[in-house]
Amino acid sequence: NLEELRGSLAAFAAARDWDQFHTPRSLALALTGEVGELCECFQWRGDAACAPGLPGWTDADRTHLGEEMADVLMYLVRLADRSGIDLPAACAAKLERNGQKYP
Amino acid sequence: NLEELRGSLAAFAAARDWDQFHTPRSLALALTGEVGELCECFQWRGDAACAPGLPGWTDADRTHLGEEMADVLMYLVRLADRSGIDLPAACAAKLERNGQKYP
Amino acid sequence: NLEELRGSLAAFAAARDWDQFHTPRSLALALTGEVGELCECFQWRGDAACAPGLPGWTDADRTHLGEEMADVLMYLVRLADRSGIDLPAACAAKLERNGQKYP
Amino acid sequence: NLEELRGSLAAFAAARDWDQFHTPRSLALALTGEVGELCECFQWRGDAACAPGLPGWTDADRTHLGEEMADVLMYLVRLADRSGIDLPAACAAKLERNGQKYP
Repeated sequence: NLEELRGSLAAFAAARDWDQFHTPRSLALALTGEVGELCECFQWRGDAACAPGLPGWTDADRTHLGEEMADVLMYLVRLADRSGIDLPAACAAKLERNGQKYP
Repeated sequence: NLEELRGSLAAFAAARDWDQFHTPRSLALALTGEVGELCECFQWRGDAACAPGLPGWTDADRTHLGEEMADVLMYLVRLADRSGIDLPAACAAKLERNGQKYP
Repeated sequence: NLEELRGSLAAFAAARDWDQFHTPRSLALALTGEVGELCECFQWRGDAACAPGLPGWTDADRTHLGEEMADVLMYLVRLADRSGIDLPAACAAKLERNGQKYP
Repeated sequence: NLEELRGSLAAFAAARDWDQFHTPRSLALALTGEVGELCECFQWRGDAACAPGLPGWTDADRTHLGEEMADVLMYLVRLADRSGIDLPAACAAKLERNGQKYP
């Protein structure tokens, strides 16, 4: 649940006095860093070795990829929160727009 | 709710026969593209003009930023789904690890 | 020549009074935006349609890709300049390190 | 000199039999990874701590930033080479277009 995640991350940051660092532009740069780490998981494998479901990947590879995905999600949720953007509402609006754009 | 979003995006793609395009590496590249668009919202403003809550931003600017955030979220959720990664579980595990790492 | 490019970009920005916007963090975000546009050129094609030399691409596709690559290069050179980093020297040092790392 | 760098990187990859990995999409993902590492150098500092010239940064911080910039440059040059794009020519064309766009 995105709203629960938002609350957890806000509490986590507040307890560590991190709000001073978690400005929108800093979080956008941190998000870019995490997306870069996510891309590194895929970079040298080729499409054939990255078929849907990632069949040949080890459990360690999968766990690592999941961690990078989680980092991206957490910085995105935190960035939305610190920007005053309602991410679930923005997502619902975008889904509706996509439905109109690609009927 | 991330699981509902995953299901909606999977149904949307299946109905349009997009699974053939939505391979993990293609989605990672698409995610990068959306993160780039998100960063463009912040690039020329400076920290002062991007204070928490983005106080001086117009409604149009906020709507645009929300759309870019939604795009990032949707490609991330879709990438996790097509990779066979349980994003909510990966996120819960990462939150617990972060709690141990920064007690 | 990277040094000539650095000088051209510096003169171009100075003549338009853009130094006020070209701070290191703003340029890092702009660089991310351009890398996102570059990735969009490749995102829906798959490895097979992106073989070395990009054999099936139209001239327009190639020109577009070249423009995105140029944008990435120009923001990188500008970022290095505004950060006070000697990019050619940093590159020479990294090449030497790579030679030691992968003998 | 970009052409020399292109040649050096091509020879380096050929000598290690890396052309099989250096496909355009793989290099685009690797480029994203390096841009992410570059952004990490700036993420938690704020604009004030990243003034032009990066005055308060240590020599080690600067060397690290230079390495990340070099990595971005090298993957970009390699990506252009493997894509069959003449990066210096693309850059010259883009500079001319920018001059017309922002007279």
